[in-house]
Amino acid sequence: MANPTIDFFYFFGSGYAYLPVMRIDEAAERAGVEVRWRPFSVRTLMRENNIALRDQPGKMRYIWRDIERRAKWHGIPFVKPPIWPTDPDELANLVATVAFAEGWGRDYTKASFKSWYLDGQPLGERTALNQVLTSLGQDAAEIILRANSAETLAAYAAETEAARQLGIFGSPTFVADGEVFWGDDRLEEALAWAKGEHPARTEARK
Amino acid sequence: MANPTIDFFYFFGSGYAYLPVMRIDEAAERAGVEVRWRPFSVRTLMRENNIALRDQPGKMRYIWRDIERRAKWHGIPFVKPPIWPTDPDELANLVATVAFAEGWGRDYTKASFKSWYLDGQPLGERTALNQVLTSLGQDAAEIILRANSAETLAAYAAETEAARQLGIFGSPTFVADGEVFWGDDRLEEALAWAKGEHPARTEARK
Repeated sequence: MANPTIDFFYFFGSGYAYLPVMRIDEAAERAGVEVRWRPFSVRTLMRENNIALRDQPGKMRYIWRDIERRAKWHGIPFVKPPIWPTDPDELANLVATVAFAEGWGRDYTKASFKSWYLDGQPLGERTALNQVLTSLGQDAAEIILRANSAETLAAYAAETEAARQLGIFGSPTFVADGEVFWGDDRLEEALAWAKGEHPARTEARK
Repeated sequence: MANPTIDFFYFFGSGYAYLPVMRIDEAAERAGVEVRWRPFSVRTLMRENNIALRDQPGKMRYIWRDIERRAKWHGIPFVKPPIWPTDPDELANLVATVAFAEGWGRDYTKASFKSWYLDGQPLGERTALNQVLTSLGQDAAEIILRANSAETLAAYAAETEAARQLGIFGSPTFVADGEVFWGDDRLEEALAWAKGEHPARTEARK
């Protein structure tokens, strides 16, 4: 039988996504659960749902502080990224779409978030992107060309549509057997759900 | 030395507030932390911050499902309240202001949330309120009169202003030594903070 699996929907430029990017592999391995990483355009879905965090400075102040505390709670390094919102063209996400098609998506994701968070580089900007891609042994110019191709745009839009169909409205979101869990703080529940061990799931079965 | 203390800001009619209402006393006692219960008008602050959950049906669907799962995760009984939003005049909150002034606020809060959640009664409506107050041995007519007095309205507004000053925008919120934690899922962090055991706090001290 195949291992239980969860889908990990996230967006490059989502502050909270940093936390599972840094800890999901270890947590999933401990739980014996596989993870499918699925970058998508949370920006599109948030716009549709009229959730504009950039217009809520008070809430954003809280959110960055909360991420900092949660990073320390998990033992993850934290430096507040100096630039947010980032990447107006979602190029960092589009490059991820290419990277996952070629099997180096996780390394690229982790390198990107570290570059943005820990080195303070502007996510998705050409120089930062070049640096990340080069560090992974990739031909940056070639990859960026393909990131902007019709094929990549369509694949990225299809993932965003899949997220919309699931009722997703935020990043990060985990999906286990169709059950949607929003937020890094729900990762443990999603893993339990995938293994059939979440009390809300086992009870429903009786 | 006085025990460490946290402030518990919440709103009658906030779905997520149900979770800490049902579990905070036990969790705080285990941690050796005192709790000050502080009902306030989250509705006022959410209006100011343009966070209108009632206009986001997709997100609300998720939220109720999440509360259900979290209730089972904590071992708390759950029935989805049939009526939301509730209590347009915030009478349930105003009664709480009276109740806390007289020392029976916690019992009233728990009885109210149970009546709303588990018995499906419309929170803040006269019949439901009468029932809750009578079950606590209170004179419902007398209490409701005082809930609508200028003194109570001023005390309630002052608590809402205190929440605003702290940067609070949602319910439930916990505050430990000025540090703000939003959401039932942050209760354990707030308790750790109050005891000086949160890694983000101990690190800052070094």
